[in-house]
Amino acid sequence: MQELIERIRREGRNLGGGILKVDGFINHQVDPALMDACGRELARRFASVGATKILTAEISGIAPALTTAMHMGLPVVYARKHKPITMPDQVFLTLSPSHTKGRMVELIVSPEYLAGGERVLIIDDFLATGATILGLARLAQTAGAVIVGVGTLIEKSFEGGRAALAHLNIPIESLACIVSMDGEQIVFA
Amino acid sequence: MQELIERIRREGRNLGGGILKVDGFINHQVDPALMDACGRELARRFASVGATKILTAEISGIAPALTTAMHMGLPVVYARKHKPITMPDQVFLTLSPSHTKGRMVELIVSPEYLAGGERVLIIDDFLATGATILGLARLAQTAGAVIVGVGTLIEKSFEGGRAALAHLNIPIESLACIVSMDGEQIVFA
Repeated sequence: MQELIERIRREGRNLGGGILKVDGFINHQVDPALMDACGRELARRFASVGATKILTAEISGIAPALTTAMHMGLPVVYARKHKPITMPDQVFLTLSPSHTKGRMVELIVSPEYLAGGERVLIIDDFLATGATILGLARLAQTAGAVIVGVGTLIEKSFEGGRAALAHLNIPIESLACIVSMDGEQIVFA
Repeated sequence: MQELIERIRREGRNLGGGILKVDGFINHQVDPALMDACGRELARRFASVGATKILTAEISGIAPALTTAMHMGLPVVYARKHKPITMPDQVFLTLSPSHTKGRMVELIVSPEYLAGGERVLIIDDFLATGATILGLARLAQTAGAVIVGVGTLIEKSFEGGRAALAHLNIPIESLACIVSMDGEQIVFA
């Protein structure tokens, strides 16, 4: 999506080690008009997959998942990383490695909001190694739901996430695909 | 706001100890149409305060702050509870007691996105004791910003948050005000 790519070119920063800083419009400060446009575009790309629910992971998945959900007219569930006291004792839980935190994090969804037979569209901010998205996919599969697609704002194709998700046999869409971040460069596909 | 109040009446659950479960449409699963309507209404109520930025706290503040920001055409910043590696070493940080977690949590904002002279509208899901909102207000004040209003989806007036914020001398709006949660009841103002 040209609007997102231009914004990353203008304001994104390559911090080295594959770390892309987009804190000014996605991860800490959010530009709501841009996020709305991204949600509209993801909704357009997944219009025909028959999704019944959108699934994402807190924290930075919430904004793109919400705007996509608004344009698709679907509920969105965000997996929690800490079980809140309002959640039942019996939950769907999986562990997922966080490469920005350097440790495993929990992804938790209540069975109240992820049921067998749902057709789940997974939305997140980044597709990097695919670890978080694979964690969300395991949660959905454990619930007996069908995964119908994966959509992300930014793909770092050099981290191999698309290959890691290939066995899911579902459409994978990213709005901006970065093929290399050598030196200080940010090279788009 | 009648639509939100009706939804809480229908699907909210009083878990005792002042804990209101709204996980089915606000805190874990989000109803995007309802959240959009709440954002539109908060934007309407704060249309004349001259806000230049919306400030909230991750995690569950993100959705209402984002929809409010969309309707006001303003950027939104969410305070982080853990400093990400993309954030500079020098940050605005305050501690805030979390009554759902039973401990202090950090609220962190990068000086890149909260500057002196900004007119900050604070948005969150709940106004309970006011502790989180006071933490956000301290961050804004430390940055040299002016706080122009506080808007929340749900106020639990019996927890005293409005009084705790009174010294800020700013408009405080909540879309659904609960005055009592004795027994299994949820009593609206």
